[in-house]
Amino acid sequence: MPIFEHIKSCSDTSARIGKVHTHHGTFNTPAFMPVGTQATVKSVCPNELSEMGAEIILGNTYHLYLRPGHRLIEKMGGLHRFMAWDGPILTDSGGFQVFSLAQFRKIEEEGAIFRSHIDGSLHKLTPELAVEIQECLGSDIMMCLDTCIPYPADEQEVRESTALTTRWARRCLKARKRQELLLFPIVQGGMDKKLRARHTEELADMGFDGMALGGLSVGEPKEMLFEMIEVSVPLIPKHYPVYVMGVGTPEDLVNGVARGVDMFDCVMPTRNARNGMLFTSTGRIVIKNACYADDPLPVDPKCDCFTCRNFSRAYLRHLFIARELLSYRLNTIHNLHFYLNLMRQIREAIAADTFKTFMKEFLSARQQE
Amino acid sequence: MPIFEHIKSCSDTSARIGKVHTHHGTFNTPAFMPVGTQATVKSVCPNELSEMGAEIILGNTYHLYLRPGHRLIEKMGGLHRFMAWDGPILTDSGGFQVFSLAQFRKIEEEGAIFRSHIDGSLHKLTPELAVEIQECLGSDIMMCLDTCIPYPADEQEVRESTALTTRWARRCLKARKRQELLLFPIVQGGMDKKLRARHTEELADMGFDGMALGGLSVGEPKEMLFEMIEVSVPLIPKHYPVYVMGVGTPEDLVNGVARGVDMFDCVMPTRNARNGMLFTSTGRIVIKNACYADDPLPVDPKCDCFTCRNFSRAYLRHLFIARELLSYRLNTIHNLHFYLNLMRQIREAIAADTFKTFMKEFLSARQQE
Repeated sequence: MPIFEHIKSCSDTSARIGKVHTHHGTFNTPAFMPVGTQATVKSVCPNELSEMGAEIILGNTYHLYLRPGHRLIEKMGGLHRFMAWDGPILTDSGGFQVFSLAQFRKIEEEGAIFRSHIDGSLHKLTPELAVEIQECLGSDIMMCLDTCIPYPADEQEVRESTALTTRWARRCLKARKRQELLLFPIVQGGMDKKLRARHTEELADMGFDGMALGGLSVGEPKEMLFEMIEVSVPLIPKHYPVYVMGVGTPEDLVNGVARGVDMFDCVMPTRNARNGMLFTSTGRIVIKNACYADDPLPVDPKCDCFTCRNFSRAYLRHLFIARELLSYRLNTIHNLHFYLNLMRQIREAIAADTFKTFMKEFLSARQQE
Repeated sequence: MPIFEHIKSCSDTSARIGKVHTHHGTFNTPAFMPVGTQATVKSVCPNELSEMGAEIILGNTYHLYLRPGHRLIEKMGGLHRFMAWDGPILTDSGGFQVFSLAQFRKIEEEGAIFRSHIDGSLHKLTPELAVEIQECLGSDIMMCLDTCIPYPADEQEVRESTALTTRWARRCLKARKRQELLLFPIVQGGMDKKLRARHTEELADMGFDGMALGGLSVGEPKEMLFEMIEVSVPLIPKHYPVYVMGVGTPEDLVNGVARGVDMFDCVMPTRNARNGMLFTSTGRIVIKNACYADDPLPVDPKCDCFTCRNFSRAYLRHLFIARELLSYRLNTIHNLHFYLNLMRQIREAIAADTFKTFMKEFLSARQQE
């Protein structure tokens, strides 16, 4: 069975629906993956994720390597068993967190040297170690270690960094022992179209299972994000699932799908939930605002999530202001449901070949906010 | 229908089983009530409470009065609808929190003057207001405003304070408008057996629906706690449910039931859960301890709670050390299940007239810890 089963393409955009088959089952694309950084999607349980419609979740290699450690998780039967999630799991490579979280970092040919953000201890993450960690975790989709490029960056830096990412991808491929776990490389190239295109082509030739686009949503203008996606997607083999890392807003997901992206992850629904920002069919609301103090309506009257079926805006505001633990959980359930339900609607629209209309209506409704 | 339906008494202790009928349905006694201070049992949802076997929960008048306010909750349809719990709710009177939490307090004949622990605002809680707040909340079992007595206290202070509690109880009875909501007075009397007995008799004569024993578990030795219970229980009308407030450990519940207590509440299972202390059939464990780092067993192999069915000690330790929100929730589910399951076992033992044996085995197993 091929890894990516193509089902249908949109007639007037690059959107497509399909299924990705992994060691822990199948998920439908386009897919959104809730982020479970430290072996938990913050505040919610695996059964709730399933009920919300999550079919695949993401774990963070950097965090799990540092705490509780990949060897411990392996000893406990792997990440699936450890966190009691038996569906597919994708793990990132740790490269982005070394770049964004570590107290100190130095990139060498051999790997990334960094100090832990938890205790300051010194570590060296090599491409081989990144694969070893992910194989210990038992990740269904592993990522090659990459170097991240700040935005803006000078051309020489982008060129060298991207070339190193290619050499590291080759070493990851060689280091892989568990062939049943899929391995994706990460396209870099900064915001340079030529470099992005060349890097995509280089990586497409090397025998991976899919491809990720990295180094995006790092502060660049939206148009640039979509340009970079547009440069890469046509150069990626059609039987590869295409994954844009760390993107994005609901609008970004719709725009990404239209450009041929199959997989997304982002902390936005979960992190914003904990900050009291909730997504609705008519725009975003900030639940702590005084106007919700005595509002008996659910967050979104059109939403059928657990939170909206049971609780009012007034109650959610009370919980948020009182800093109650239940606040973070109910908000997270609502926001993740919003994202996962959006992906369902997108897939249905592609199946019915009405995606372009869906996209127009969705984006214009939200521009009027 | 009487409020308290007596089902069976133990042949060799004062333990009894029964049912209490309220405006929002019936609960079985002896009962443990999880504490939902701010319109939520911290970190868990109403459906989880039901699944764990909770039949009645407790809300705090002091907290709900200050935030979000009883008028707002009334406007939202009452506390049951606000927090989406449709079973019985008991609320305390606020007296204990004024005593333990408020920044400043002064007890007058009229009521308790205090400053909010949230914003320092000045308030006067009278017996009439305590009833009004609880009627706005729609509490199924309301408590009369009482004065709390520190331990130790001088005799004169105890005498005066207890007499004031009686006068306030009379005013509460008079202030009550919603007859369908039950009203219990609170026995005080410090640690003076004669005063406790006299106060119990005074309150038993006034036409309430049940009786609470207050001012206990305030630092006194365990023997004294049980002596105070033993003094009061025989003087309480047999058709009154007997409620000991704020007690206690699992051992306290068993010992209380043996002395004729029908209802308990305590923050211990929920608060300890958030501090990583878990109850098991063989004693307490502190989940952050290093010995659990790679322990694949559930918290309690004999427990069938959601947490124990799905997660290992190693995972719970990881969540606790990483300060993950899910830690507090999974620990809370386990500890509340332990308490509620203990009450089920107690009721079954009384029904089978084997409670005395159950008690001996339970207490001796835990003394060996």
